[in-house]
Amino acid sequence: MKVTVLDLGYVEFIEAWGTGKAGGVERLQREDAVDYEVGIVEAARQSTQGSFKGWDEDMGLMRTLFNHQANQSTPFEAAGMTIEVCAPIMVFREWHRHRTQSYNEASARYKPLEADYYRPNLLNLLERSVVTTRNKQAQTVTSARKLTDKDAEDWLTCLDDLYAYAEKFYQLGLKMGVPKELARVGMPVGHFSTMRATANLRNWLGFLTLRLDEKAQWEIRQYAHAVNELIRQYFPHTHQLFWEAQNGA
Amino acid sequence: MKVTVLDLGYVEFIEAWGTGKAGGVERLQREDAVDYEVGIVEAARQSTQGSFKGWDEDMGLMRTLFNHQANQSTPFEAAGMTIEVCAPIMVFREWHRHRTQSYNEASARYKPLEADYYRPNLLNLLERSVVTTRNKQAQTVTSARKLTDKDAEDWLTCLDDLYAYAEKFYQLGLKMGVPKELARVGMPVGHFSTMRATANLRNWLGFLTLRLDEKAQWEIRQYAHAVNELIRQYFPHTHQLFWEAQNGA
Amino acid sequence: MKVTVLDLGYVEFIEAWGTGKAGGVERLQREDAVDYEVGIVEAARQSTQGSFKGWDEDMGLMRTLFNHQANQSTPFEAAGMTIEVCAPIMVFREWHRHRTQSYNEASARYKPLEADYYRPNLLNLLERSVVTTRNKQAQTVTSARKLTDKDAEDWLTCLDDLYAYAEKFYQLGLKMGVPKELARVGMPVGHFSTMRATANLRNWLGFLTLRLDEKAQWEIRQYAHAVNELIRQYFPHTHQLFWEAQNGA
Amino acid sequence: MKVTVLDLGYVEFIEAWGTGKAGGVERLQREDAVDYEVGIVEAARQSTQGSFKGWDEDMGLMRTLFNHQANQSTPFEAAGMTIEVCAPIMVFREWHRHRTQSYNEASARYKPLEADYYRPNLLNLLERSVVTTRNKQAQTVTSARKLTDKDAEDWLTCLDDLYAYAEKFYQLGLKMGVPKELARVGMPVGHFSTMRATANLRNWLGFLTLRLDEKAQWEIRQYAHAVNELIRQYFPHTHQLFWEAQNGA
Repeated sequence: MKVTVLDLGYVEFIEAWGTGKAGGVERLQREDAVDYEVGIVEAARQSTQGSFKGWDEDMGLMRTLFNHQANQSTPFEAAGMTIEVCAPIMVFREWHRHRTQSYNEASARYKPLEADYYRPNLLNLLERSVVTTRNKQAQTVTSARKLTDKDAEDWLTCLDDLYAYAEKFYQLGLKMGVPKELARVGMPVGHFSTMRATANLRNWLGFLTLRLDEKAQWEIRQYAHAVNELIRQYFPHTHQLFWEAQNGA
Repeated sequence: MKVTVLDLGYVEFIEAWGTGKAGGVERLQREDAVDYEVGIVEAARQSTQGSFKGWDEDMGLMRTLFNHQANQSTPFEAAGMTIEVCAPIMVFREWHRHRTQSYNEASARYKPLEADYYRPNLLNLLERSVVTTRNKQAQTVTSARKLTDKDAEDWLTCLDDLYAYAEKFYQLGLKMGVPKELARVGMPVGHFSTMRATANLRNWLGFLTLRLDEKAQWEIRQYAHAVNELIRQYFPHTHQLFWEAQNGA
Repeated sequence: MKVTVLDLGYVEFIEAWGTGKAGGVERLQREDAVDYEVGIVEAARQSTQGSFKGWDEDMGLMRTLFNHQANQSTPFEAAGMTIEVCAPIMVFREWHRHRTQSYNEASARYKPLEADYYRPNLLNLLERSVVTTRNKQAQTVTSARKLTDKDAEDWLTCLDDLYAYAEKFYQLGLKMGVPKELARVGMPVGHFSTMRATANLRNWLGFLTLRLDEKAQWEIRQYAHAVNELIRQYFPHTHQLFWEAQNGA
Repeated sequence: MKVTVLDLGYVEFIEAWGTGKAGGVERLQREDAVDYEVGIVEAARQSTQGSFKGWDEDMGLMRTLFNHQANQSTPFEAAGMTIEVCAPIMVFREWHRHRTQSYNEASARYKPLEADYYRPNLLNLLERSVVTTRNKQAQTVTSARKLTDKDAEDWLTCLDDLYAYAEKFYQLGLKMGVPKELARVGMPVGHFSTMRATANLRNWLGFLTLRLDEKAQWEIRQYAHAVNELIRQYFPHTHQLFWEAQNGA
């Protein structure tokens, strides 16, 4: 499962876990599919020496775990997911502030960078210049004029030029013999990079809570929506509880 | 895979991950087995946009990762393992100081405790009372006499009595109507408890480094040896590198 | 500042930090007191390149930080506190599950243990055997009879005997030449131990949120109340916001 | 104490802690100075219920703690330091991978960015293009020619142009009404940013171990040297042990 984000970027599912004992190999032989949430119930039952009884019965336990989250959310650390992410550096800069994930990012010190850059969409740009009057963090500066279609188009054209110049400059440095780690000094934060990110389910939910929020920057919110899709796919029971909590159900 | 430890205790394998993209489902269909270490290589290759090439070639990469561990060990966070552990409370007290694992322990607040207690082995007891003259942390007090066979036997008999009393006292409290969470107040730290523990491979190796060390208390060292067996089984390439490092190879 | 808890236990203030640049040495010379919360404001202002302006103005910023906590609570990691705690092992067992604190506990492997044991109060015991009908986690077992005054008194007398036996057994082992680390195997979890605990303010608040909760076991709740007093003393502005949030103000 | 790094950047000491009970206020009244390492000894002594005895005697304890670090380094979590750092984004990108520090970085979403950019030094550039033949991570690409003085000068001039263009583009966006969070999309990773970073002493030493290493990128190594100076100043005993370990003494 691979979700395209920001045109050139993506979030790709690599691997999940949380099958516990009853949701893994044995179940695979029996039902031709693993269940990545059985391990959560088994971990929770550890508290009462029981085991998985089937979702009809155990969804209630999951709900209790989830709602008393503060106290009992450690079972959600018994499941997890690894994904691959391709995103602009500016998004990674925000993403990496989540200190509970494990990251392996493509390093510009090892291998020359790809020539992919993030070009905001014209309509999106125009919308956000209006919306942001209500969102302090995303606002324009006070001295700004109202963004016109013409200005937005011009600005994007200038951005294309800047990216082209930055790319040319990068290639020039490499060719001249500037070390790779230094040749990248002029690379704009709109440049795409790639990483693998691993976290347990509890921490993925924490990531979603912060980054699905409307105060989060629009770009990283798109990535959060993609991660949300993967959670829905591989951890459907947890996702339902998360969705209910987010929507005050 | 389940390894018996301290007679009544055990370490049981529940689940592993780290297959990445190439070591999981596809490989299962092709080779009838998953490979829990492919994800480590894939995560490392993220740095150079490559992928798994087979162990003949990639064991060299693994060795580089492992030996430059300080700098490059994050790929070992892309794999991990959940186990179930049954051990005396005194062992859990040491184990839980490892703050990078996720724990779900059976709670005496929810369900009455089992009647299993740790009884040290006579020979082991005698040996340790000698060995410990070289190991400050495990030494006897300075005013102690030399432990004789007779004294050791007597002491173990007294321990049996103490356990019997503690168990009777616990059952008495429960019957009288003392809340479970309080009825346990007299429970000795030699009492067995059960938990699930989850950690990534990097942190399991950290656990082993500390707890396989001869300065670690003998009891938790037996559990470390059992965890070590699981690592050898499910992460053989990493285990070999770990073993070489431990033995100065 | 030292608060007595559970008769023989205590929580003692050792040290706090969070003065930032403007709340420390310079302020000490000017006002004869440091301010451990200025560093929080300075850290937050880092986002806008400003600095501390005085509490009249900056309490509003603190409130914003606190209420949008999910997104902006990192400034509360710029302050912190070290305390010394003396508590029964059963309390430490719960406490140590907070993996964001740093612990240094007195080790029974190094030095013989003190002879202090936790004896629940008779009235408290009787009250809790009633209250607990509403609190699943603290309930009595289903087969229990109603705890009477007489039974409670008898049970406490038995506990005294158990403690006396355990202490005698411990001393016997030490004298006979049983290694210290093993002599403790019969020590009840009601035995007192001592530790230093260090955490940043964000994590202390997380500790309080969980352990002031009425679902937390009564014993650790008393310790949380003591920590709460220290927070009130050394971080008054943060404490006020925390108090308001706890009380739905 | 403020150390200039990379011409326009700096590392500035904000605050330290670790005085414990005996190294703080009381000592200040007596000796007109606090001692930020007494808390480490007190925390370690917690294991043996003792307290600080003066450095003549306690340096031996510190050495034992430090050398058996794997097992006993938690006392170094009882001290710590907050600093302010001004560095290029490319340095922050590496720095933020240290997940045990607390960061508060100036946000381009709140306030327009300053116009400071990192311009590598000509001589340094020439040296590194040679040295890097031995350091894989910092090497030039295989197709590169040998960096000449002329090429290096030209490349730096192009960098100046790129920075000038990027700055103009940024200001243009702000003026046109592009939201601040988006206007920064073309900002090169050589642009300076500012943050506060807080960590305990154990984690600062971990940072230094990795970033003083000659395999670390030259730029972040300069920051590590500056942090090293602060550690030497405020934690002299720990620093001496660290220095001895680094130099195989």
